[in-house]
Parts: sequence; structure tokens; C-alpha cells
Amino acid sequence: HINSSRLWESLMEMAKIGPGVRGGNNRQTLTDEDAEGRHLFKNWCEEAGMTVGIDSMGNMFARHEGTDSSLLPVMVGSHLDTQPTGGKYDGVLGVLAGLEIVRSLNDMGIKTKRSIEVVNWTNEEGTRFAPAMLSSGVFAGVHTQDWAYDREDAEGLKFGDELKRIGFVGDEPVGARKMHAMFELHIEQGPILEDENVDIGVVTHGQGLNWIQVTLTGKESHTGSTPMPKRVNAGLGAARITELVNDIALSFAPHAVGAVGHMDIYPNSRNIIPGKAVFTIDFRHPNKDVITAMEQMLKFEGREIAEELGLTIEFEQAGAFDPVTFDEGCVTAVRNAAVRLGYSHRDIVSGAGHDACWVNRVAPTAMVMCPCVDGLSHNEDEDISPEWAAAGTDVLFHAVVETAEI
Amino acid sequence: HINSSRLWESLMEMAKIGPGVRGGNNRQTLTDEDAEGRHLFKNWCEEAGMTVGIDSMGNMFARHEGTDSSLLPVMVGSHLDTQPTGGKYDGVLGVLAGLEIVRSLNDMGIKTKRSIEVVNWTNEEGTRFAPAMLSSGVFAGVHTQDWAYDREDAEGLKFGDELKRIGFVGDEPVGARKMHAMFELHIEQGPILEDENVDIGVVTHGQGLNWIQVTLTGKESHTGSTPMPKRVNAGLGAARITELVNDIALSFAPHAVGAVGHMDIYPNSRNIIPGKAVFTIDFRHPNKDVITAMEQMLKFEGREIAEELGLTIEFEQAGAFDPVTFDEGCVTAVRNAAVRLGYSHRDIVSGAGHDACWVNRVAPTAMVMCPCVDGLSHNEDEDISPEWAAAGTDVLFHAVVETAEI
Ligand SMILES: NC(=O)NCCC(=O)O
Ligand SMILES: NC(=O)NCCC(=O)O
Repeated sequence: HINSSRLWESLMEMAKIGPGVRGGNNRQTLTDEDAEGRHLFKNWCEEAGMTVGIDSMGNMFARHEGTDSSLLPVMVGSHLDTQPTGGKYDGVLGVLAGLEIVRSLNDMGIKTKRSIEVVNWTNEEGTRFAPAMLSSGVFAGVHTQDWAYDREDAEGLKFGDELKRIGFVGDEPVGARKMHAMFELHIEQGPILEDENVDIGVVTHGQGLNWIQVTLTGKESHTGSTPMPKRVNAGLGAARITELVNDIALSFAPHAVGAVGHMDIYPNSRNIIPGKAVFTIDFRHPNKDVITAMEQMLKFEGREIAEELGLTIEFEQAGAFDPVTFDEGCVTAVRNAAVRLGYSHRDIVSGAGHDACWVNRVAPTAMVMCPCVDGLSHNEDEDISPEWAAAGTDVLFHAVVETAEI
Repeated sequence: HINSSRLWESLMEMAKIGPGVRGGNNRQTLTDEDAEGRHLFKNWCEEAGMTVGIDSMGNMFARHEGTDSSLLPVMVGSHLDTQPTGGKYDGVLGVLAGLEIVRSLNDMGIKTKRSIEVVNWTNEEGTRFAPAMLSSGVFAGVHTQDWAYDREDAEGLKFGDELKRIGFVGDEPVGARKMHAMFELHIEQGPILEDENVDIGVVTHGQGLNWIQVTLTGKESHTGSTPMPKRVNAGLGAARITELVNDIALSFAPHAVGAVGHMDIYPNSRNIIPGKAVFTIDFRHPNKDVITAMEQMLKFEGREIAEELGLTIEFEQAGAFDPVTFDEGCVTAVRNAAVRLGYSHRDIVSGAGHDACWVNRVAPTAMVMCPCVDGLSHNEDEDISPEWAAAGTDVLFHAVVETAEI
């Protein structure tokens, strides 16, 4: 067993950086707070005897040397960045659980054959810079680094410039590190494990995602003196497409989900008919064909809505990933660890995207999930119990150590 | 006749301050650009021999002395502030037409018995600080100055602090100036005059307005891992109410209008179900009872929408004015001037709110309207012809001079 109180203390210590307004965190990627969190993580790793390398995407790798340096390492980790109104555990638990594994190995004086590398992937959340899982995506060859550097936040600042500003452009070429396998522990971010009172989710698959940014263009005009038939109201179009997105998701029940989380109307003045609306649709399903069908329905019916209102409509891909099947060997290692430790467990499909989903393309990968209160995540009220965190980290510990071999 | 090329040159000169991105203007109230526009106006007035007084709301009064100082002055003016993506004429024309009247009187060596005061009312647009027509409202006793000083912009800056910052807290108590009558020239901001090829709108009434700010509160959660039935989506509620607002306006056709021009969803992240939406509804109609009925429908059906989605809903009054009947004597002076000058004209109801609507409560008031291209306003593409501006200013000139007596 790992040291659960030390794990919890580290979680609470990290949560002091970039506090939210309601008890959660706002430590968005490449902000000063992100940099502070990275420095704390680096210090902790060095105190535990690890060597920290950083690649050109800011991904951090803390290496705990194994006894046979000719073997590829086992990676374990997640991300330290948060949503603007995020919780203390989404991502952070997976990174600090990796650190706790190494600390526990140190305590126990156990040496693994393979090195263990604890990783913090840059910009998993994708709020400040879309898409999500940006840097594990570049690592896995899904995006180019140049394209990633050019991503812009809402203020027009570029990812590459902000990475440089916080001092985390490392000297390692991204993707150069090779690995034997990777494991990621993450809170479920959904209600299944808690509802069923199960300690451990053995993640066999991840559902796919499609982010489609829509731009509707109408005509700004006066809300008082423009007759109703003369209006070309981009905000009304955005409202209708928001409803359409909900309808499409419901029409593929029970597994499809769909929502509009990002919406800007212009010029956002009480007495101007919106002349432009820019918003992003998030569609997900475990089956890629369904995601394609949802996108087709959106485009077909979205164009009809626009036409009826006299609006022009443009669609832009803002991020996507296919459904993932995790590596059978790694999944088995997770399941076996849960059985061995006597935790209740079930197979589960991840509703969210994770760095492990991209890494799975270049190395055998699996994930461990622990419950979270009320399935709530991407919310400052996100909560887990120290026992859940400990159980998940125990399972991660056993799966990682088994894979790294003693 | 006034000097139409001088009027046009002054309009173009003022439009250089706070240029927009597409040929219009962004000179929002109490910004540095607003201050620059105010200084230019003050200099022009002083060059024309006027004395400029400023009240505690920043309203500016440039006085052209009459021959009988025992008589109350005739006021003429409008506002120099613009929408964030506004045109060059909305408001500005009415202020600079007032200045042009005095310049023309100087040229002609004509003296009026009553003084003429050219006024620039502070914060007519209401975008940065709601409500619209804030300072003419305080002048007319509709709002208190303390309340007005406390209005906040989107950044939380207060009206009173920003007025001080730009140096326009005048030493006159607001409302202390008395007047015999007031006239305001404004572009129509709607399509009627141009469609009917009429030079002059004789404004007999103004329609009423109701701004209702709605706050919907749901629950932030993950767009991927939160099952559809578990969502409490404030953005979906905002979309439904946006559609409802449109339906309500159409159900009171042809005169009712309704739209949502301001909408913020929180935390505005692509992968978070919106936990909060704040938006403002703009309802208008020439009959107050209809406005009341629209508000009641909104509240009743809005509550049903919120309930169905599990959202809480709050309504807040964000600005309102009743329909206005302008002063018969002043309206007749405008109509007579149009007849005398041989311009085509028709009676018209103002679709927008204007400072004249509030001033009408404390002094006899009327308005002159000129056409604008395609009825477009609150848009950088807002446009008028120099001939339309000249005709409107000529009518204003005659109405003002007749009322001020020679
Ligand atoms: N786990 C998580 O919240 N990742 C962000 C990407 C996503 O929205 O699924
Ligand atoms: N004229 C004008 O646009 N005034 C602003 C107040 C309103 O929205 O009617």
C-alpha cells in the first residue's frame, strides 16, 4: 500500500496554487499559476531522487532509475493544469499518484528493473488553448509542434509564446522519449462508480469526441427600431443550434452526449441584434460512426436553421479524437491489481478524453479510475475521499510495479 | 439654411476619435476616446463664442447667449457616446447639428431672444453602463445620482469613478439648468423614411422599452462524462428563453420587438456544461400595456423552462422607459419648419429611446428624424447622406430659432 496521508497532503499543497473562488482551482495551462505548480512538482520529484527532463512542448518527465537501464521505462502520470473553474483532483491526482508510487518505492527500498517516469502532460484541459490533450497529442504524432505553437487563447496569445514566457520550453525533442507502457489514474468525472459503490474502474475504452466550432454571421442592428422581419439575428441562430445539439444527442440515447459549453455573441450589447455568434459544440459517443452521424445531422440541420434566418454559417473542426481501445495487457494488469488488493471493481468506458488516449497510439496504455462525489467534475465542487484516492493509487502502484518488474 | 459642408466636416472630424474596425466608431461612454470627443466639442463651442458648463453627471451645456437673459433657454442636442460597434451619426449628428445652428446664427448675425444651449448628454447608449439614457434620466429626476454613480461596467468599474477619471464631473448640480424647450435631431435607426423616400420624420411618440436581465443557475459539469439526464444546463435554458423572446415579440406583431443582445455563459469552456447564464432581454412596444404583457409572458414561461431543466431563474430590471408623447407645441414647430422649407415629411414613432424622451418629463420637447441607409444603426456600416443630414439640421434650425424667437 502507498502512503495515503502523504498523497493527500501533496494534493492539498498543490491545490493552494491557483485557488478558485469556491474551493476549487483555476490553474489554467501556461499561466503563472501553472508555472508555480510545475516548479513545486519538479522540487518534489528531485527530493525523491528523480531526474526531471522537459520536452519542447513543456511535457515534464521525472525519472526514477531502474536497475536495468537497457529496458524502456514505464510511464505513469496525467496533467497538472485545470479548468478555469476546475476541481483539485482532475489530472492532479494522476500526477501526484505517480510521485507517491516513487516515494513509496523509496520507503520500501524496492527497486524495479525498468525505470519509472512520472509525467505531467501540458495543456490537457484545452480551455485556454483548444484542443484538449494538446501536448500528449503532439508527443504521439497526432499534431505537429508548429501547429500546436500557433494555437491561440481568447486574448490572441499563442501557445508557443506562453510556453516560452513561463520558461518551460525544454531541450528534449517532443516524442523522443520511448516507453514500455503507460498508466494513468484519473477520477471518473461521471456518476457510475459512486452510484454502484465500486472502488475501481478498469478503463477498457474511451469514447470519441468531436468539437465543432460554429460561426454564424448576421447583421448588427438596433433592437428597438429594426422591425422583426428585417432582423438577421445571429444570437437567435445560436440559440436554435444549441437546442438542435441537445436534440441530436438525445436522439442517439443512451450513450451519446452533446452540449454547447462555449458561446460568444458579438458585439454583446443589450441594444444590438447580435451580428455574429461563435460557439463550440461538444459531441461524444463510444462509436465513431455515431459521432460522424451526429456531425452530419448538425451540419445539415444547422445550415437549414441559418438559411431560414438569413445567416451565413461556417463549421470548423476545433478538436477531435476517435474512440480508443486500451491495451489488453495493461488493462489486465490493472484488473489483476484490483483483484489482488481486494477492491471492488468494474470495467468502464471513459466519458472524457485523457492523455492516455493519445499515448495509447505509441505505447501500450491503460487507465485506472476512482469515483468522484455525484459524478461532478469541471466544477469547483469536484470532490473525492482520501480513501478513493488511496485505493486508486494502490491499484496504479501494483499495475506499474508489476509492469516495471522487480 | 445651415452650412451643410461645415456640418459634414465636423461629423467626419469627430468620427476620427475612437475609430471602429470597419469604418464606424467605438467611442463608448467615459472611455479616453469619449473624453477626447468631449474636449473637441468643447473647443468648437468656445470657438463659436459659447460658454460651456458641465454638471455632476458630465452632461455638457454650451450656451449661446440670447438678447433677453431673463428668458429660459432653448436646448438642442443629443449624445457623443457610441456603441462598441457603432456608427458615426447615432447621437453625434444631433449634437453637431446644435453646434451648426449656433455657427450659422453667428454667420448670419442673427440674435435670438432666448439663449440656445447645445447639450451633450452622458451615456446615452447604455452598453458600457446600463441603463441607456442614464444622465438625461438623472437630469429629469428618473434616477438618483447616487444610483447612477454605482452602475458598473462588465469589468466592475463604476460610472462615478470613470466619470471622475476622465475629468468630467462638473460643478453644476445635475438638473439645476432650466429650459423653455428642447429639440433633438437623430437618425431614424429604422427603415421607414428611406423606404418611403421621405426627408423628415416628425416624431410624435417614442415607444417604451423594458430591459430584463435574466440569471439562470444550473450546475457546471463535464460535457463528456455527465450523462444527459444528469445535466443542469444553464446554456440550454438561455437558448430556450432566447427563442421564447422571439416568439413573444412575434405574437404581438406588427409593432412589438424583442431580442437578446447581451449573453454571457459561465465558465465559457468548451468542455463544461454551462453552470450559469446571464443575459438581457430587450422588449419594446408603443403601448405600455403590451410591454407589461410581454414581461408577464416571459416570466411565466421562462420559469417553466427553468423548472423543466432544473435551473433556478432570477429576473432583474436593467432599464425601462414608458412610451412617450412629445409636446404638441414643439412637434408642431418641427412640422411647420419642414413645411416651410419644402421637405417631404411624415409623422413617426421613434423605435429607439432618446434623451429627449426623458427630458420631455421636465420641459416641452420634440424630435426631428432623418433617414439612414437600409435602416441600419448600432452597426459600423450605419450611413446617411450629407443631404439628409442637412435637411434634418435645417428643420431643427428653424424649429429652434422659431422657439427661441428673434
Ligand atoms: N479529463 C478531462 O476532463 N479532459 C479534458 C478533455 C475532455 O473534455 O474530455
Ligand atoms: N438611440 C439609441 O440608440 N438609444 C439607445 C437606447 C435604445 O436602445 O433605444
